Amino acid sequence: MELISESRCFDGMQGVYRHASAATGCDMTFGLFLPEEARQGPVPILWYLSGLTCTHENAMTKAGAQGWAAEQGIALVFPDTSPRGEGVADDDAYDLGQGAGFYVNATKTPWAPHFRMWDYLAEELPALIGREFALDMDRQAICGHSMGGHGALTLAMGLPGRFTSVSAFAPIANPSASDWGRKQFSAYLGEDKTTWAPHDATLMMREKGLDVPVLIDQGGSDQFLDLLRPEALSEAMVARRQEGNFRVQKGYDHSYFFISTFMEDHVAFHAEALYA
Amino acid sequence: MELISESRCFDGMQGVYRHASAATGCDMTFGLFLPEEARQGPVPILWYLSGLTCTHENAMTKAGAQGWAAEQGIALVFPDTSPRGEGVADDDAYDLGQGAGFYVNATKTPWAPHFRMWDYLAEELPALIGREFALDMDRQAICGHSMGGHGALTLAMGLPGRFTSVSAFAPIANPSASDWGRKQFSAYLGEDKTTWAPHDATLMMREKGLDVPVLIDQGGSDQFLDLLRPEALSEAMVARRQEGNFRVQKGYDHSYFFISTFMEDHVAFHAEALYA
Repeated sequence: MELISESRCFDGMQGVYRHASAATGCDMTFGLFLPEEARQGPVPILWYLSGLTCTHENAMTKAGAQGWAAEQGIALVFPDTSPRGEGVADDDAYDLGQGAGFYVNATKTPWAPHFRMWDYLAEELPALIGREFALDMDRQAICGHSMGGHGALTLAMGLPGRFTSVSAFAPIANPSASDWGRKQFSAYLGEDKTTWAPHDATLMMREKGLDVPVLIDQGGSDQFLDLLRPEALSEAMVARRQEGNFRVQKGYDHSYFFISTFMEDHVAFHAEALYA
Repeated sequence: MELISESRCFDGMQGVYRHASAATGCDMTFGLFLPEEARQGPVPILWYLSGLTCTHENAMTKAGAQGWAAEQGIALVFPDTSPRGEGVADDDAYDLGQGAGFYVNATKTPWAPHFRMWDYLAEELPALIGREFALDMDRQAICGHSMGGHGALTLAMGLPGRFTSVSAFAPIANPSASDWGRKQFSAYLGEDKTTWAPHDATLMMREKGLDVPVLIDQGGSDQFLDLLRPEALSEAMVARRQEGNFRVQKGYDHSYFFISTFMEDHVAFHAEALYA
């Protein structure tokens, strides 16, 4: 693992690291914020999964999460959104290929060899950071934005017991029924929709739900409401009496201005669960 | 004036605007955050001037200022750092030409016709935003980072009575004695150093100082300490008993991670002066 940069931030340290990934077969870059408390011993972790076109960097520089995480003594992990590099398949569209991994293990060519973001995030990266840093891997929470909100919800439901709490900003809530989903699942997983279901937060919520609390924030003026389908997830959450909170925030759009506005709430929500 | 984008943010609105500038002879873009209170009537303003290579966008998305400004009911203005466009002179170096206006009125070719950032910020942009938005132009404060810290300090000292308070993150403190300054002043203003003095915060501090409080934060591990020359400004401030606070923050570098860490303090410092 290679240290790319390190900047002091809110009395802690914001690092960027690169490592050779077995899961994705390429070098992967991630950001890690360690609060001051990590100098004394292991601290809890909040994962932040990013949206389409993002790298590890967007949320790390624009979400305003470090200050609140520092206040709570929580580490933040900012993974990339896909494999990258010259040998990695790509597409001209912004919503397929590099920057658009959708947090699945692709089984179809040309995506299959590298696009294994599920394994990367479910297994490889947690093992790596648990080994290398002062992190308490028994206390992990997860959040994300848009495609990353989809990733956070599906990883949490797919890995029961892993996370203490899940939150999302404007998640892609029902990808099987959206152009942000059908196109990508067809490409990565093929046409058999039984392979899609474990990657659709609404379908998973209907099937199994979560035994930990969920917080969703959705901007009421989000320019992508038709693609996100928040109403499907909200319906599924309430139908199964999922412990949670689905908030529509009047006037907010899909941008980081929306995320940064409510980041304090999300970090506080996770802190309550992580320290329960 | 053209609205480029508008995003709700901390109950207020983050807008981006473009307008034809007479001062710079080209279109100029700026960001403006209006807190919720601006819907009721004029609010005080904090100017944020950015550093080398930045546009209006960097601080707007990465400094984490809007939350604190919203809490204090203060507007934030994020101007660009230079004129831009195809007809505007430029240089291959990152620290000269577009993105590197240094907040002066250039008098030398090829810079003279467009590089008039002093006039733009001292006269044209305040007049424009005072006319177009609910801003209380009798209550203005100013801050900035690096080249923008230089701009904030020199504008405040050059326009006595304009600002209630001045702050800077890692300002270019003594450009006449630095490679971040000599090269640009030579290009924009020529070799007569009497024209440089009104654009050197340390020299101005020695000559006249400020009748309002000053807050400076300087990262102790800033990678550009030799170019910034913070010790020269600090010496000048204390020698003239300038009301102020010069803080060295151990371990912090020159990045937005440093800025965002101390942004709360800077906004609170300005709020105290704006509401005095």
